[in-house]
Amino acid sequence: MASPPQRRGRRGGKRSSEAGQNPHMHVPYINRKIPPYDLLDEESLIRIEQGAERILAEIGIEFRDDPETVRLFKQAGGKVTGVCATAWNIKFEPGLIRDLLKTAPPQFIQHARNPARSVQIGGDATVSAPAYGSPFVMDLDKGRRYGTMLDFENFVKLAQSSPWLHHSGGTICEPTDIPVNKRHLDMVYAHMRLSDRAFLGSITAPERAEDSIEMCRILFGADFVEQNCVIMGNFNSTSPLIWDGVSTRGIRAYAAANQGSIHLPFLLGGAVAPLTMAGAIAQNLAESMVGCALTQLVRPGAPTVLASFLVTLAMRSGSPTFGTPEPATGSLVMGQLARRLNLPLRNAGSFTTSKLPDGQAMQQSMMSMMSAIQSGGNYILHSAGFLDGLLSMSYEKFIMDTDVCGALHAYLNGVKVNDDTLGFDALAENGPGEHMFGCAHTMRHYKTAYWDSGFTDDLPFETWSESGGEDGMMRANRQWKKRLADYQAPPLDVAKDDALKEFIAKKKASVEDAWY
Amino acid sequence: MASPPQRRGRRGGKRSSEAGQNPHMHVPYINRKIPPYDLLDEESLIRIEQGAERILAEIGIEFRDDPETVRLFKQAGGKVTGVCATAWNIKFEPGLIRDLLKTAPPQFIQHARNPARSVQIGGDATVSAPAYGSPFVMDLDKGRRYGTMLDFENFVKLAQSSPWLHHSGGTICEPTDIPVNKRHLDMVYAHMRLSDRAFLGSITAPERAEDSIEMCRILFGADFVEQNCVIMGNFNSTSPLIWDGVSTRGIRAYAAANQGSIHLPFLLGGAVAPLTMAGAIAQNLAESMVGCALTQLVRPGAPTVLASFLVTLAMRSGSPTFGTPEPATGSLVMGQLARRLNLPLRNAGSFTTSKLPDGQAMQQSMMSMMSAIQSGGNYILHSAGFLDGLLSMSYEKFIMDTDVCGALHAYLNGVKVNDDTLGFDALAENGPGEHMFGCAHTMRHYKTAYWDSGFTDDLPFETWSESGGEDGMMRANRQWKKRLADYQAPPLDVAKDDALKEFIAKKKASVEDAWY
Repeated sequence: MASPPQRRGRRGGKRSSEAGQNPHMHVPYINRKIPPYDLLDEESLIRIEQGAERILAEIGIEFRDDPETVRLFKQAGGKVTGVCATAWNIKFEPGLIRDLLKTAPPQFIQHARNPARSVQIGGDATVSAPAYGSPFVMDLDKGRRYGTMLDFENFVKLAQSSPWLHHSGGTICEPTDIPVNKRHLDMVYAHMRLSDRAFLGSITAPERAEDSIEMCRILFGADFVEQNCVIMGNFNSTSPLIWDGVSTRGIRAYAAANQGSIHLPFLLGGAVAPLTMAGAIAQNLAESMVGCALTQLVRPGAPTVLASFLVTLAMRSGSPTFGTPEPATGSLVMGQLARRLNLPLRNAGSFTTSKLPDGQAMQQSMMSMMSAIQSGGNYILHSAGFLDGLLSMSYEKFIMDTDVCGALHAYLNGVKVNDDTLGFDALAENGPGEHMFGCAHTMRHYKTAYWDSGFTDDLPFETWSESGGEDGMMRANRQWKKRLADYQAPPLDVAKDDALKEFIAKKKASVEDAWY
Repeated sequence: MASPPQRRGRRGGKRSSEAGQNPHMHVPYINRKIPPYDLLDEESLIRIEQGAERILAEIGIEFRDDPETVRLFKQAGGKVTGVCATAWNIKFEPGLIRDLLKTAPPQFIQHARNPARSVQIGGDATVSAPAYGSPFVMDLDKGRRYGTMLDFENFVKLAQSSPWLHHSGGTICEPTDIPVNKRHLDMVYAHMRLSDRAFLGSITAPERAEDSIEMCRILFGADFVEQNCVIMGNFNSTSPLIWDGVSTRGIRAYAAANQGSIHLPFLLGGAVAPLTMAGAIAQNLAESMVGCALTQLVRPGAPTVLASFLVTLAMRSGSPTFGTPEPATGSLVMGQLARRLNLPLRNAGSFTTSKLPDGQAMQQSMMSMMSAIQSGGNYILHSAGFLDGLLSMSYEKFIMDTDVCGALHAYLNGVKVNDDTLGFDALAENGPGEHMFGCAHTMRHYKTAYWDSGFTDDLPFETWSESGGEDGMMRANRQWKKRLADYQAPPLDVAKDDALKEFIAKKKASVEDAWY
């Protein structure tokens, strides 16, 4: 097959900036003006909630390597049975975990070092953050390779440059060129130095969680941190039905410091969760609620976030599949369950299994992302860059996804209905058959009525073709390079910067490098 | 910029067929199991409805070149004012048009020549049909060129081959190699001969509408046609606020024959509709209601479909934009309005302005298509192949879009909640920490739990890369060729086929070719 004839060009339509003509839409986070979508009826929701309670009461959760967490749950009424010297099964009477969640705030502010960029987590707020956790990065020039600290910093810069993300995220990609036991310091510093938005801290070891929080004390002041949420950790259960000590110790560290934590089961159906979505949702609810409940035992009122990550499986190959319809519907139900619990929700994102930022990638991403939005998801990690089934962070897809995040600002604004927007005068001014290009209503609204994409190509075919006939990947390739070239670091107090560097240097010098 | 290294291959992952492992999902049309989404509150909906009534009462609709339609509306209570010798303005008291719609059926069956493929239009039914009306076609080998009858037939075959479309559509592309005054005969015949699904007839001239219906009388029998809907016409108003005689005469022809009609304003905001979405929706409602009402004056109870096509404008270039967020929200509101009117709705589709079936194309398509689905849209024209702002029908995008249509079968099934799907036993069988690959629940459900795409690539990166590293466009390019090669025509009664051919030959011989 010959090369597609349309794909010969190098140049193409020019765009000024990602912001386009949408400055009126710039906000620190989205306050949704449209209601979330309710997929299931009350009876079905109750059955799923009862399913979660039954899992907790009859099978229980296994806790490993963290006697203090076991002590806390036992004291709260959990029935503890020893599994081995370092593992305990705890069963919870129906309702026990839900009762513990009553002290958790339904919404809270995560403060950014730039106060204008602090975000609300929960309620009507939608906060978008880059994808998280890929070992690889990809771009069209160099293909797929292990992520480095340079890549990490590039993505923090690209996120900071986009008006359509609200949060700097966490481990945007693994900086594999930095020792495993020290990279958290460089990652947290990059978020602090190169972005002025809120971010996630380390969770890979309890002492790294403590380091992340300590760096926040330097940046924000210890008193401020004691009273306010300035960092969050994103913790995974070890599904099915295990909370490992590395996670629970980290959760306790964040909660003790009054900082936020997200409690995420990674539920690959048929592997670590029931294949059928109702069962996976019940399990998700059970595992995530238990993580959230632990925070309240450590410090009642500590900010905590319910989370959902529902993944299907290609049964023929055993590969995980992303952006498929069943997790989309499951995410919608998770939104309903989070509202009934009165907890903020982390949900879905721009998922895909595609290995290129192509049609498949964006189709799957939208199936997934629209479910996050419709579900009322409050914190959308994985909003930008996700490719290759979470294994690769893509520079080009990052550009495409942030443009979608921008469009969602308009989508979540909904349809405003008043005399002005009903625009009777626009029709009446000239009457039937007459265009409205110049009418007063059009002149009044043309700058703000529509989302103006900084990425999509809307030119006529001939214009597009003559200017190079680029596809979306090529445009995105040019855009991320320009965005990086144009990037300017937000100002940071020199004394704080020096103190952070000193902390990092001391920490790094105090232990040998570890590479696994 | 160098060619992307991943894009060198020719072969790649193999798929058996578009059907994948989803035979349990094959249905003549989708009966949605999830509720539509309500975006606006009651008060806002009433204001939009009042806005539509005000347009009808104070500005009125202009009717051209069809005195009989004017007579019918005058008799029904419309206030007629002459505009010129061939044009009349009619104003309608608030509520008049809505009253006329009370005889319209909330849902009806459009019969296919294969009774197993008849579709319900309205209620909980979702019916997907190919895109409609492009002058150009595109594929990766030959690029963009004017559509021909061969292309038209190819798309009918591709649609018929897909289990995920439910309807053969209408003018899938313009067969520009056939005279304008005769191509409707060949198009209707192609739908009848190459597909056994329901389809749309001609609307470009009243006599062509009559020909389409007459051919149905040959295929279905005149008595059957008199009693049942077997064909529909898709009619456009001439926005703003005009119904032209070519459309109204055609509408009357379909209604008189008890056949279906769809009443579609094409509302390009800022050009032929207010820029602000509330106003465009009110105008859309007004124009479409009037078309529907005309059918009820001709023949009370005739099947009729409310329709919506909301398009934004790139204000910098004046180009229409498709797949943007505002029309998505507008479509959701149109769904609410249609339900309040108790009428079936044609809504949105897989829209895009991209000139290639790339990431932009599928991102915009999904923004648009998910709004059609969430709105409760009943008849989704433009479900497959739409590219280039409706100017081109794409062979590759057709494949991508039909795969999405398949995924929507799973999405619209929602989340089934019962003891079996809650899957407690799957978790209890082995307990915490143990995978579920072999458990009884997994074995019972693995064939039917998940949508199994026939298009997306879910393989690990290495496998994908070693087998050629194709992007979605290349896979789609191979798929449509294979699908066409494998196509088999559904059987058709020889006598009927001969009668159809004879009718067409006579009609063609009776007039000179016309090329405009």
